[in-house]
Amino acid sequence: MAIRLLVTGGTFDKEYNELNGTLFFKDTHLPEMLKLGRCKLEVDTQTLMLVDSLDMTEQDRHLIVDHCSKLKDERILITHGTDTMDLTARNLGQANLPKTIVLTGAMVPYKFGSSDGLFNLGSALAFVQTLPHGVYIAMNGRYFLWNNARKNRSTGEFEEI
Amino acid sequence: MAIRLLVTGGTFDKEYNELNGTLFFKDTHLPEMLKLGRCKLEVDTQTLMLVDSLDMTEQDRHLIVDHCSKLKDERILITHGTDTMDLTARNLGQANLPKTIVLTGAMVPYKFGSSDGLFNLGSALAFVQTLPHGVYIAMNGRYFLWNNARKNRSTGEFEEI
Amino acid sequence: MAIRLLVTGGTFDKEYNELNGTLFFKDTHLPEMLKLGRCKLEVDTQTLMLVDSLDMTEQDRHLIVDHCSKLKDERILITHGTDTMDLTARNLGQANLPKTIVLTGAMVPYKFGSSDGLFNLGSALAFVQTLPHGVYIAMNGRYFLWNNARKNRSTGEFEEI
Amino acid sequence: MAIRLLVTGGTFDKEYNELNGTLFFKDTHLPEMLKLGRCKLEVDTQTLMLVDSLDMTEQDRHLIVDHCSKLKDERILITHGTDTMDLTARNLGQANLPKTIVLTGAMVPYKFGSSDGLFNLGSALAFVQTLPHGVYIAMNGRYFLWNNARKNRSTGEFEEI
Repeated sequence: MAIRLLVTGGTFDKEYNELNGTLFFKDTHLPEMLKLGRCKLEVDTQTLMLVDSLDMTEQDRHLIVDHCSKLKDERILITHGTDTMDLTARNLGQANLPKTIVLTGAMVPYKFGSSDGLFNLGSALAFVQTLPHGVYIAMNGRYFLWNNARKNRSTGEFEEI
Repeated sequence: MAIRLLVTGGTFDKEYNELNGTLFFKDTHLPEMLKLGRCKLEVDTQTLMLVDSLDMTEQDRHLIVDHCSKLKDERILITHGTDTMDLTARNLGQANLPKTIVLTGAMVPYKFGSSDGLFNLGSALAFVQTLPHGVYIAMNGRYFLWNNARKNRSTGEFEEI
Repeated sequence: MAIRLLVTGGTFDKEYNELNGTLFFKDTHLPEMLKLGRCKLEVDTQTLMLVDSLDMTEQDRHLIVDHCSKLKDERILITHGTDTMDLTARNLGQANLPKTIVLTGAMVPYKFGSSDGLFNLGSALAFVQTLPHGVYIAMNGRYFLWNNARKNRSTGEFEEI
Repeated sequence: MAIRLLVTGGTFDKEYNELNGTLFFKDTHLPEMLKLGRCKLEVDTQTLMLVDSLDMTEQDRHLIVDHCSKLKDERILITHGTDTMDLTARNLGQANLPKTIVLTGAMVPYKFGSSDGLFNLGSALAFVQTLPHGVYIAMNGRYFLWNNARKNRSTGEFEEI
């Protein structure tokens, strides 16, 4: 089952710049993570952008929706910062595409010791294979419909609205 | 959605004994892994045994099937050594229980640097929520029906028969 | 051989705040690091402050020198941010105390995957046991005299002046 | 200050073979560890053998002593399994070479999560720079003279005889 993996950045891919002590993007870690998970699915990875989702513009979101609508793939996984993941999910949901689209992210960068990234990637890849057409957020081991999810900013967890 | 998590051991839970340089079982790491994954599913974890699946006896497998049949839970995730996972899956499949049962494991102990455990746990938890009744193996990002899976011992990957 | 370990913060002890994506101080990781190193030296750990060395004030530095001069210990190890480590070393060197004082730090937080912290801690503890009275910086596997060290900000490495 | 690093194997360099669940040697991790420690010493690394020190023969030990005596380097660091490190240290000590030779090792493989390897490497590199001619064991943050060290097999720690 072929899966398209679209990378947009987010905490998932942030790294520590040891020269100035800030977090930044260099490359996506998704291929490395798929390898670590011994993933044998047919996954085509494509980096659309590498941005913090707080910096994501309307134009960026438009590009994501547009890209998803043009892709021939029926199963699309999008890695995305958690802060505005629900907003991009809404944009995608309203486009009403005949595809299964799952968005996931991480609370802690993959490169840091205590990341939830690998767990989330595993669950998102499973959800994108098994859920019917629709747009979903996969976080905290759960899946949420695009019009019924938000990040609780005091706990850092996703919940129904 | 309540999920029953049955621990049977396997590479997942092996640790390094620094006094004699061997691998052994102490406790399960599943609760720690669920915490790392920021998992917010209702998961009831229960340790049935902590064994290498090469050492698993007919009696052990009987106990697992018996336990699954008596549990009220409809969604059961079993962590299991990969070497005889297909055999236990067959035993469970033949019992024909009205439940979704997913077996998963790891190629490298969770405690070691390069484990696939967290990835597999994430995917297995997603599969157990979304797949119809039946018995499945979740490895390598994929799911396999109980009567159509085996571990390829030269690659360490699962494949259809 | 008793060693006094004074914690002042620095990259060593920074953690990732997953709620807002910033780096911050919570507690020192030094006791955990000593345990990981199976360190069996008699080390008395004391947290003087937990600050980024770019935020360290003249008063902070005065406090460190004053504290070192009042301690009865002859061997003192100080963990410190790398950005102004040379400045604190100068303050300590000019105090001309009859003690062996070693400053060390890390380029990457201990909690992140690729930290040099454990390596630096090991080398600094060895230097503080073996070097004659004086003030030293221990970084990059090397030791530097307090009046002959600076951080090269483009490489992140310490070098002679 | 040039340092010769002789690799002989030991727990330091053991890896997990995910196909059969055993520990084995593939390559030394010392260059990777030096890089992680941002080590800027002039270190010449040379792999003499890759063996578990319980499997080390008289001939192996003879080779190590012979190699050390022929090297022009005055400062030699040897990575070695901990189980018979004291025995090799004795062989080297009795050779009475005009050099500073430090042996170190690890209780847990570098590749596993909780290794003391990086800490020990840091301390050993510092000791080999600062200690006078002689043969030493560097473990647990401490250094021991070749004729006054043994591994306590019940605690896994080194101690004076």
